[in-house]
Amino acid sequence: MKLFEPLNVGGMRIANRVMVPAMVTRLSGEDGLVNQDIVDRYVRYAQGGAGLIVIEAMAVHHAKSGPLLRISEDRFVPGLTDLVRRIHDTSDSKVVPQIIHFMKVAKSGWRQTVDLLSLSEIDRIVEEFGDAVARARAARFDGAELHSAHAYTLASFLSRANPRKDEYGGNTLEGRLRLIERIFENIRRKVGVDFPVGVRFLADEFIKDGYTVSDAKLIGLRLAQLGAAYLSLSVGGKFEDAVHLPGQVPYPYTGYSGDRCMPGDWYPPMPHAQFSAEIKAFIKSYGYDTPVATAGKISDPDDAERLIATGAVDIIGIARGLLADPDWPQKVRQGERERIVKCDYCNVCKHLDGTHTRVICALWPQGSLQAPPDDRSVAAPRWEATGANLTVAIADGKAMLKWNKAAGAARYDVCRTDPLGNVQVVDAVKVTRWEDHSLLAGMSYRYQVRVYGAAGQGGASSNTVPVMLPLPAFAGRIQPAHVDDTNR
Amino acid sequence: MKLFEPLNVGGMRIANRVMVPAMVTRLSGEDGLVNQDIVDRYVRYAQGGAGLIVIEAMAVHHAKSGPLLRISEDRFVPGLTDLVRRIHDTSDSKVVPQIIHFMKVAKSGWRQTVDLLSLSEIDRIVEEFGDAVARARAARFDGAELHSAHAYTLASFLSRANPRKDEYGGNTLEGRLRLIERIFENIRRKVGVDFPVGVRFLADEFIKDGYTVSDAKLIGLRLAQLGAAYLSLSVGGKFEDAVHLPGQVPYPYTGYSGDRCMPGDWYPPMPHAQFSAEIKAFIKSYGYDTPVATAGKISDPDDAERLIATGAVDIIGIARGLLADPDWPQKVRQGERERIVKCDYCNVCKHLDGTHTRVICALWPQGSLQAPPDDRSVAAPRWEATGANLTVAIADGKAMLKWNKAAGAARYDVCRTDPLGNVQVVDAVKVTRWEDHSLLAGMSYRYQVRVYGAAGQGGASSNTVPVMLPLPAFAGRIQPAHVDDTNR
Repeated sequence: MKLFEPLNVGGMRIANRVMVPAMVTRLSGEDGLVNQDIVDRYVRYAQGGAGLIVIEAMAVHHAKSGPLLRISEDRFVPGLTDLVRRIHDTSDSKVVPQIIHFMKVAKSGWRQTVDLLSLSEIDRIVEEFGDAVARARAARFDGAELHSAHAYTLASFLSRANPRKDEYGGNTLEGRLRLIERIFENIRRKVGVDFPVGVRFLADEFIKDGYTVSDAKLIGLRLAQLGAAYLSLSVGGKFEDAVHLPGQVPYPYTGYSGDRCMPGDWYPPMPHAQFSAEIKAFIKSYGYDTPVATAGKISDPDDAERLIATGAVDIIGIARGLLADPDWPQKVRQGERERIVKCDYCNVCKHLDGTHTRVICALWPQGSLQAPPDDRSVAAPRWEATGANLTVAIADGKAMLKWNKAAGAARYDVCRTDPLGNVQVVDAVKVTRWEDHSLLAGMSYRYQVRVYGAAGQGGASSNTVPVMLPLPAFAGRIQPAHVDDTNR
Repeated sequence: MKLFEPLNVGGMRIANRVMVPAMVTRLSGEDGLVNQDIVDRYVRYAQGGAGLIVIEAMAVHHAKSGPLLRISEDRFVPGLTDLVRRIHDTSDSKVVPQIIHFMKVAKSGWRQTVDLLSLSEIDRIVEEFGDAVARARAARFDGAELHSAHAYTLASFLSRANPRKDEYGGNTLEGRLRLIERIFENIRRKVGVDFPVGVRFLADEFIKDGYTVSDAKLIGLRLAQLGAAYLSLSVGGKFEDAVHLPGQVPYPYTGYSGDRCMPGDWYPPMPHAQFSAEIKAFIKSYGYDTPVATAGKISDPDDAERLIATGAVDIIGIARGLLADPDWPQKVRQGERERIVKCDYCNVCKHLDGTHTRVICALWPQGSLQAPPDDRSVAAPRWEATGANLTVAIADGKAMLKWNKAAGAARYDVCRTDPLGNVQVVDAVKVTRWEDHSLLAGMSYRYQVRVYGAAGQGGASSNTVPVMLPLPAFAGRIQPAHVDDTNR
């Protein structure tokens, strides 16, 4: 698979095209130091074989915040150095820190906006980013990533909503680009030209009057010109449409742009990959080969392979899918994709982040702070003597499924086959019942439940139950065409 | 061109694939009757040769509203009959009314939601739609279109945010579909099965927790099963994210979903066509050939042709583009596309609608209530003896263009050629100056201004001015690759 071919990323050679994008873990303390939980989390990704691991955002400055890693002073370097060494000792995964500057947000809902920053404050931000990248180099990271996405300072400058009237805005694209341009200049002066520095930015802000891929193509081109090692695309995640709950600090993933940033189960697969492909094609037309990473609800290995093989993008970012199963790369490479613990996009992880709780995956065994080891010695779960005994009741426009518990089960995947023969894992649950609210009457579906152990070892599948909601007839209705699924 | 091939739409034969989607005109009075301005507006589209004209939404009920057409009583039929006759006398354009039910909205921001409707109120809505379609048939319309998009009653039932707990919601897709199913049954009972009834609905709600194309595919399939003559896709335009200005009735196109519904100049071309294509492919996989119409910032005839020729969709809806120039179909068919008055997506029309003002196009001659006639006897505009004398000044990250007035000019198109040789009409203006805020430094652009008369007759182009913003150099910056545009 092309997915597992190496790539030169601004001088850093990654062994394959699978990337862990920066994900908040809430595992660090208020002290900003690397701790054992943090180390364990990222070593686990290294064990799984991702080509590039981006460590969660760490602040380049001292501003007050909840639990958050820091790279704002030299005293944070030893812990980071240890984290890097532990990862490098584990596998050939490359590792970079995402470095972030953010502004003040209050429980009242007030937030500092970029027009409130003085020129000397901007100068300080420039220096802070340069210093942080120098510390990343000192800590032996393989590179660094500037966080210029979502609701944070660099993204707010790039935003089409940047309200500054001076040379750092002024309602021009060049003004919006000036800060990141100065930061690149400062970084190069402080760490030299051979340290790979990528940028994460938004392909679409997904807010009213926000920028779209039209501007993102130009921003990407400028970043390529600035010598960015890679461009990593995200979308949305803005304060502008965040829902403010009284007495709580606004969380920039609560509005529509937050929905887009971490698309839930009601979104189609990879709804944003096309934007990354457009940006890639655009910079390529100008002669730039800067690698482009995409992300957002990519879970099917065939989808990922197609994106790489067609040259649409260069790197596949998988956040929630790798949280659910850090061994996704290994399992795909070894042809064991049926053993993958498949993310069902329930967004419990997003909710935990939003409530400042340690982020885990709901599919992990109860009480686990990390993904379980891929222990092949553990037996697959087994149904009791009575079997799975899956039953489906139909009422009120929905299908209600029930089945028996299996011994050693960590989760059950609910599979639905549509009338065309397409099999879809419609949900993954720990309980032994599930309701389908998105059935269409007049269509023949088949349900089956599959049982898995904690490390993805699959047991026997349940019995299959066919279901059809009746579709009332009346004159003028066009009967469903006969669909031949006998060969599927 | 395939764009000009006829199509059978549920028994109605349209001569070509260009559709005028329903557009609010604010030309009618509070009385709900067709008046001369309304007739003039739609006859103008017929003159231009669109295959299908959808008359702006007319209410199936009596609820209070601003100026709005009505089809809620038999007394509205004579005026509608006259409108249809005038259109049919003009060309072979087919014409259908968009029929709408909406709920109450108050200046306080309060609005009636679907969970507040009693079962008997729902029964009445069902009858009102059936009666309205019967009146449409009596008025000799070629068919009718149910407005099940944006912020209105039918769309609110289909919505993923439908809060009803009973059989008209209940958090199931079947529940959300029940009302439109009953309406189709009622229509068929009242008007028979041979009267084409299309449906406009949303491919994506573009609101937090709203439905995406995943549900839209299933909704489209159900509508095809119900015997819809065509599916016309729009997006967004919801109350949920509308900006409420104190003392004003909320307008459902003021939020992000409103941005998407009528994408402005910062959006790429046809940002939603892909959704329509996905829905088309999906219903086709189930054996349904129901024609699918797409819309949203489609202006390039080549784009439109490609969508039709590849079978991605069947009908091209052009709203703002046909408002700007109703002769778009004629001009494209006759190979005169350089004479098209090209919509620049300034959204003055949207603003007029939002302020309950008669909707015109900013590119029409001052004071016109309708698009000017395509009068070929009028001479093309001419620059004075001093010529266009286009000059471009560069400062503060932007390019400031100025040029001379031309005699007989209705508008000037500002054309920018990028370093790859792509020519883009970046704006259309009536004044003789323009600023470019989306220049990227380090790139060589060329500007030219083209002058046009009211009916699109083009005068001589201005001189061409090359421009480049300097890009400061520093170590590590990757110089722009050489781009060969000599052959373009």
